[in-house]
Amino acid sequence: MTETPTQPTQAAETPNVDPVLLDDLIDAVDERDTRWLARTLQRMHPADAADLLEALSFDTFSEAVELLGGELPADILIELRDSYREEAVEVLPDAAVASALDELDSDDATTILEDLEDERRERILEDLAPIDRAQLERGLSYEEETAGRLMQTEFVAAPEYWTVGHAIDHARALGEELPEVFYELYVTDPGHRLLGTVSLATLLRTPRDVQLSDIMEDPLSTLKPEMDQEEVAFQFRKYSLASAPVTDDGGRLVGMITVDDMVDVMQEENAEDLLSLLNVNSADGADTVWDTVKARAPWLGVNLFTAFISSAIISLFEATIAQIVALAVLMPVVAALGGNAGSQGLAVAVRAIAERQLDGDAARRAVWREVTSALVNGLIFAVGVGLISLVWFRDIELALVMGAAMLATFIWAGFSGILVPLGLKRLGADPAVASSVFVLTLTDVMAFFSFLGLATIVLL
Amino acid sequence: MTETPTQPTQAAETPNVDPVLLDDLIDAVDERDTRWLARTLQRMHPADAADLLEALSFDTFSEAVELLGGELPADILIELRDSYREEAVEVLPDAAVASALDELDSDDATTILEDLEDERRERILEDLAPIDRAQLERGLSYEEETAGRLMQTEFVAAPEYWTVGHAIDHARALGEELPEVFYELYVTDPGHRLLGTVSLATLLRTPRDVQLSDIMEDPLSTLKPEMDQEEVAFQFRKYSLASAPVTDDGGRLVGMITVDDMVDVMQEENAEDLLSLLNVNSADGADTVWDTVKARAPWLGVNLFTAFISSAIISLFEATIAQIVALAVLMPVVAALGGNAGSQGLAVAVRAIAERQLDGDAARRAVWREVTSALVNGLIFAVGVGLISLVWFRDIELALVMGAAMLATFIWAGFSGILVPLGLKRLGADPAVASSVFVLTLTDVMAFFSFLGLATIVLL
Repeated sequence: MTETPTQPTQAAETPNVDPVLLDDLIDAVDERDTRWLARTLQRMHPADAADLLEALSFDTFSEAVELLGGELPADILIELRDSYREEAVEVLPDAAVASALDELDSDDATTILEDLEDERRERILEDLAPIDRAQLERGLSYEEETAGRLMQTEFVAAPEYWTVGHAIDHARALGEELPEVFYELYVTDPGHRLLGTVSLATLLRTPRDVQLSDIMEDPLSTLKPEMDQEEVAFQFRKYSLASAPVTDDGGRLVGMITVDDMVDVMQEENAEDLLSLLNVNSADGADTVWDTVKARAPWLGVNLFTAFISSAIISLFEATIAQIVALAVLMPVVAALGGNAGSQGLAVAVRAIAERQLDGDAARRAVWREVTSALVNGLIFAVGVGLISLVWFRDIELALVMGAAMLATFIWAGFSGILVPLGLKRLGADPAVASSVFVLTLTDVMAFFSFLGLATIVLL
Repeated sequence: MTETPTQPTQAAETPNVDPVLLDDLIDAVDERDTRWLARTLQRMHPADAADLLEALSFDTFSEAVELLGGELPADILIELRDSYREEAVEVLPDAAVASALDELDSDDATTILEDLEDERRERILEDLAPIDRAQLERGLSYEEETAGRLMQTEFVAAPEYWTVGHAIDHARALGEELPEVFYELYVTDPGHRLLGTVSLATLLRTPRDVQLSDIMEDPLSTLKPEMDQEEVAFQFRKYSLASAPVTDDGGRLVGMITVDDMVDVMQEENAEDLLSLLNVNSADGADTVWDTVKARAPWLGVNLFTAFISSAIISLFEATIAQIVALAVLMPVVAALGGNAGSQGLAVAVRAIAERQLDGDAARRAVWREVTSALVNGLIFAVGVGLISLVWFRDIELALVMGAAMLATFIWAGFSGILVPLGLKRLGADPAVASSVFVLTLTDVMAFFSFLGLATIVLL
């Protein structure tokens, strides 16, 4: 291997995919040039190769995978986005899927297995070596989105009486058989119970004759296979972990989770919160029109219902509006500002809950802060909308009604923006889901009721 | 060090802080028991100690830091949330801050320096060893939120002609002087230019006499000090990195970034997107009422303005509403559903842009998908609101107007939900910021204009 000083070959902020290379790829698929395809993809980093393949239209992608068959490297397959990976697994012959399962770490192999239909999964599993099969079936037995699903069963463990020299010699003897990526070594007793961890950095700086038991540290985080992935991600972030051991109830080491998988989980959970807050069930770049409709129509349906609740409130005051049409002109202002204030509080609360900053006392302080700042903003904007209404309609009573309704709606929005997510959390529900529908409905009802109600009392 | 099989000492999903311990801590601060405070905190993991301190009220926290002074461990200080860390740095005497700077890795030391006012920073820097001082000043010279600010200047480098044995012996000789956490070794030429990287796992499994140049790999990601932190985080995620080298324009190795800092950046960027989409500038668990008002009032001000634009549209049709009050009852339904559809599209687009899934062709496909699915949902909900209006008001023309306005607003919402964020991105702006104000204003205007306009034409 010869080396020249590496210069940046990959410019920052450029698109992920080289358009010339993409055109060549499309031509190669057209010409069924399997050799070019295989060689080009194998020369690239799997993440880059996956980006390139994902830039193809879905049909061309399928064709490419069909051409490649078993020559599609497993590490590219696992880098593909969900929808593309599922399509690839669908298209690949059983033998190619089986050899991918064989090559991949167990957590990645489990991901592929999840993509398969039951019957095909059984068939492919039967062809694997019994030991691999048992391991993969165990992985699948854990619930989705738990540590058990995310962990790999490939890790490096050593007995406590070994010395540093022992461990290094052993690693050299195993060589390529070791997992490709690991950051620490686990020290176990003869019953496979986890005693401690030794980071590779510590192993490296410690003299050969020191015993592992003298340099091992308590594992920072005690992960269990049934632990929710969000909890696992939280531990990784809190303790700045690169990897962590997973132990069963008997304290036996059963797997290892690495930070790259946790980064994906964090991104997923964050995306879920953002989409939920804006009433989308799920989204992916490769979604079809039908996926999109399915992910959004249910929430629009809920909104249809809540919007007519607001209408019903307004219709209580039809007689008032008939006499003073200005009310119809102004009422959306109260609802819009109130809704905006409510969602602001909601966004902050959902973030704080995700970051676990709203336990106990902190929750009480947050409620107080939200309501007080709603009062302050309410006063500011009550005066604002009041003045604008006064200038526009030259009616002091109307301006006062507008201001008073605005203030009432802001305070109400402050309460609902924090209490709705806290309430959902206490009920064990995800505070991001459905919160915004609740909050917006509550503020709309308050806005229309207070504004039109006050107008009926004061102005008629 | 004796070891017993580790049992989970920390239950999952429990609150971060033990309430009994918290009470003891408050008592200790009351009784000014500095020794208990120092010993208790030092025994805990810094991340846990920071959580415990953050559970105190801000005033008690200040008191605790004042009591501890130089005995507050630097690694707890750096684990504190921004607002608490800033308060602590404010309260600590110069000598304590200087010794913390000395103890911390350069990236963390830079974070502390940023908290200081200019004059105090100068004073404290002057007291440091010249070499440390120069290093920290160089760190501060990079812009905020760049790789230069995030990188640490502590890393492990070796010349290419060294063997594995050489490198390990050297690491053992340095022992405690090595950085506490590192995952790879950088191979450099005599001019400090980066030639390649060797992961510690590779180092471990390779025989002693192999030369580093034979096992080093090209760095996956070429980071520059001036690179935006979002780009750096993206590279970490894409290539599943635990750490990465940073080189200057001459290819010289100047620093190292580790994944734990990138995880924080990802969380920050995600939080920013979510808060921006819901019109909040920034938020932190320790925000005061005043912080809260400042973070939200500007967007409410913008919304005040846009809400009156909607009012102005409605006021064009005052005469129509005066004759048919049902219009005032129904118009918020069109606006609410249209706004919801627009924000759904917006949420999906903002996520896809953050994930870089909307480059080139993908953007065109996304526009097509958004508009088509808006058409489908528009048809569904046009029929829905039309039927409900028909049942309610028994007026087929009103129902038809309602349905037609709904369909027009949905299609319009589909366009704006995807084109507004794509447009902001093309202009180099953050697509999450201000998008929702634009989209909601556009859909409101369309909703009121189409509904009231059609009503005026058809029903009068």
